[in-house]
Amino acid sequence: MKIDLNCDLGESFGSYKIGMDEEVIKYISSANIACGFHASDPVVMAKTVALAKENGVKVGAHPGFPDLVGFGRRNMNVSPLELKAMVQYQVGALSAFCTANGIKMNHVKPHGAMYNMAAKDIKLATAIAEGIAEVDDSFILLGLSGSELLNGAKSVGLKCANEVFADRAYEEDGSLVTRTKPGAVIADENEVIERVIGMIKTGRVKSVTGKEIEIRPDSICVHGDNPKALNFVCLIRERLISEGINIEAL
Amino acid sequence: MKIDLNCDLGESFGSYKIGMDEEVIKYISSANIACGFHASDPVVMAKTVALAKENGVKVGAHPGFPDLVGFGRRNMNVSPLELKAMVQYQVGALSAFCTANGIKMNHVKPHGAMYNMAAKDIKLATAIAEGIAEVDDSFILLGLSGSELLNGAKSVGLKCANEVFADRAYEEDGSLVTRTKPGAVIADENEVIERVIGMIKTGRVKSVTGKEIEIRPDSICVHGDNPKALNFVCLIRERLISEGINIEAL
Amino acid sequence: MKIDLNCDLGESFGSYKIGMDEEVIKYISSANIACGFHASDPVVMAKTVALAKENGVKVGAHPGFPDLVGFGRRNMNVSPLELKAMVQYQVGALSAFCTANGIKMNHVKPHGAMYNMAAKDIKLATAIAEGIAEVDDSFILLGLSGSELLNGAKSVGLKCANEVFADRAYEEDGSLVTRTKPGAVIADENEVIERVIGMIKTGRVKSVTGKEIEIRPDSICVHGDNPKALNFVCLIRERLISEGINIEAL
Amino acid sequence: MKIDLNCDLGESFGSYKIGMDEEVIKYISSANIACGFHASDPVVMAKTVALAKENGVKVGAHPGFPDLVGFGRRNMNVSPLELKAMVQYQVGALSAFCTANGIKMNHVKPHGAMYNMAAKDIKLATAIAEGIAEVDDSFILLGLSGSELLNGAKSVGLKCANEVFADRAYEEDGSLVTRTKPGAVIADENEVIERVIGMIKTGRVKSVTGKEIEIRPDSICVHGDNPKALNFVCLIRERLISEGINIEAL
Repeated sequence: MKIDLNCDLGESFGSYKIGMDEEVIKYISSANIACGFHASDPVVMAKTVALAKENGVKVGAHPGFPDLVGFGRRNMNVSPLELKAMVQYQVGALSAFCTANGIKMNHVKPHGAMYNMAAKDIKLATAIAEGIAEVDDSFILLGLSGSELLNGAKSVGLKCANEVFADRAYEEDGSLVTRTKPGAVIADENEVIERVIGMIKTGRVKSVTGKEIEIRPDSICVHGDNPKALNFVCLIRERLISEGINIEAL
Repeated sequence: MKIDLNCDLGESFGSYKIGMDEEVIKYISSANIACGFHASDPVVMAKTVALAKENGVKVGAHPGFPDLVGFGRRNMNVSPLELKAMVQYQVGALSAFCTANGIKMNHVKPHGAMYNMAAKDIKLATAIAEGIAEVDDSFILLGLSGSELLNGAKSVGLKCANEVFADRAYEEDGSLVTRTKPGAVIADENEVIERVIGMIKTGRVKSVTGKEIEIRPDSICVHGDNPKALNFVCLIRERLISEGINIEAL
Repeated sequence: MKIDLNCDLGESFGSYKIGMDEEVIKYISSANIACGFHASDPVVMAKTVALAKENGVKVGAHPGFPDLVGFGRRNMNVSPLELKAMVQYQVGALSAFCTANGIKMNHVKPHGAMYNMAAKDIKLATAIAEGIAEVDDSFILLGLSGSELLNGAKSVGLKCANEVFADRAYEEDGSLVTRTKPGAVIADENEVIERVIGMIKTGRVKSVTGKEIEIRPDSICVHGDNPKALNFVCLIRERLISEGINIEAL
Repeated sequence: MKIDLNCDLGESFGSYKIGMDEEVIKYISSANIACGFHASDPVVMAKTVALAKENGVKVGAHPGFPDLVGFGRRNMNVSPLELKAMVQYQVGALSAFCTANGIKMNHVKPHGAMYNMAAKDIKLATAIAEGIAEVDDSFILLGLSGSELLNGAKSVGLKCANEVFADRAYEEDGSLVTRTKPGAVIADENEVIERVIGMIKTGRVKSVTGKEIEIRPDSICVHGDNPKALNFVCLIRERLISEGINIEAL
């Protein structure tokens, strides 16, 4: 049994610092590195790729919408053609820093509103997947478990991987419970960890309605923005190890 | 005998159009394509790379300063570290569109203020050359004939090529006569064409002082912004052919 | 009887030129000047305000979404708080150029996706209207005839004006027929002019279903992007004058 | 006797936070608020102006170069025309938030590279001063004591004020000792405070060569980026009060 722990890194920009990259990188297996549209800049990208290499962590591109002030979290009405081009641009840019560091980029995980919109819209999902596949069809598209993003990847023959969110409740159909609904976020850390272990070991999880559903996580999204988040990554990592589950990149 | 004709392409941005790309591309051998910092956007880059492929024209990255409103023409006090990263970023981004189109990027020519500053500053020149070499050491750095840009390339073992400006006068040391001096720009089209032919055939040109100097052009910079510029490209192309000089990419 | 002719101006950006501002300004009574978010830059704004003053044309701010590459035409999921602040910022910026030129800004017309989204969403409309009223409650909000934009203005006690689109068909409820429906755009110039004259004289127009509806235009939106558009402005202006209808700013 | 304590505020941007604005504002008399070019965004500007009003602190615009990734600290080769327009734009934008909050903007202090370049270049200084005066000639230009910025203000009849840097050594001519020279920065807090008190009380300070020079500070620049800086503001404020020196805005 194995699982990937992924975290969004390299989100600083110029004089602006976000995240505890040097700390969290010790605990994860995959880093999704921002590509300069919603966060990051060329110098930050260069440093973050070097940091990932030093720590033996696999690198993925984390492309977002061109909305720095909104941190890529605001839906934008982009066309599939625009989306495909902006993904290729960002994937190429990050890829250059990987090559310069003598490593190979491993995966692509869209960010924020791009991730959420493509999770529900097969046209956008396919545009992203096509964009990636044309640049390098060995890249893995990391997307929301059970979402259109993964269907988009499959439709163009691109490898993909199921991401789960440890602290989020699921509907019976495997989609995330919307944040505005009660019970959408699971606050208790122990419960969160039990759910993750359960998903990995059994391939099942209890949905928000109480019904058990199938879910096969390839990667868990963790955060390194603050000391509390960092502590949680530590805890989940220890527990995975003690359960004999390997933490491995995709 | 042979020469490359290069032209800056893909400088449109969103709804903003610049250049007669579809016309001028028929006459040139190399296209320097803007990379989204001083001009261009991902959709324009995708289209321009496809256009170059269709016309059998070699593609080069044309990285610039992050100054869209200034079109990359304003000097910016960037550090070598910042410069290296911004070149790698832009080279990588354009490279993705080349790969997606099944072609290989051939060269890199810095734009505007980046080109001019690096022509005189070996630290900046070396930062650019290192940045390129780390991404792909088969790329050719196209820089001002006799400038530090080429010395930077040589210092890191990167291939380089001499660019000459057909309509500009040269000092005895092979540098361009500053635009503010009288005689800096040669207005007469016939004289311009004679000078170019002379440079290619003899490896020499008359400097602004009247003294003959050595100059060995690999590539001539032409423009496609307006009908007059386009007409000149046509004329120079015809004359080169009639002189038995091959027009070939670097 | 009177009518305002308004046109979007000052949409150039740095080296990028859009529009035939110097030509079209001779025929209009109000200029909506872009404010640097979806188009324009400080130098263009300064020049365009000076041009409007020279021609005795009233100036309005034309704020848009922060989406230069999309020309402000892509819907963005902004919050009312964000929208209010971005309107105040842009209104203030343009206002400074008006003051510097010794004239007073007269109106505000949101641009593109901001205009369209606020036309249907009273929360966004109110955010825009509040933002304007707090800066200067003598400004007039120019919005789509019969839309929520005008309701937003009324709800905060801001003056507003009805904009009509000469070449667009209307539904029975006074809203524009969506561009994707047949008959949405009226191509015949004579018919367009007849409709405009009819609206002004009778306060009525035939909707797309054939039923007559009430519509009381305060301002007609014209374009100056190309020679054909410019010619149409000329024609409509001549006809208005020959019908004894004054062309006056709001 | 009196002095102004000014601090750069509102430098956060979107999700990116910089500065301890809520803390430092309690100790200062003037806030220089960033205007969206080198830092800040419309929402941050709105909040920061409201914060200044609540705390009875005077507001000034803090315009910078359009270089967010470089935080406005990189010299850019802008023309006087471009500079004037970018200052008017930013002053107007901040001014709108002041009006919306029912307060009047009091001063303008250029930021970073714009401040430093204009301190040495009378053409740039005059462009800034003209830009401000045309928008509102009651604004005060706050610039480096003894610099061209103040000469620019005087040349166009704009009020100006002398800023001193508490922890920086001065040359005999009243200019700052360049940071690269030894002794440029004074590390000892007590010495810094003594120098400030001395300047205010005597109008003189010991230059780096040991010679006493005249200096008449109107405003001292303090920082609120970190707890140590905040503590220093506290200390200097207490000492000023105990010396009977009033802390008053310009």
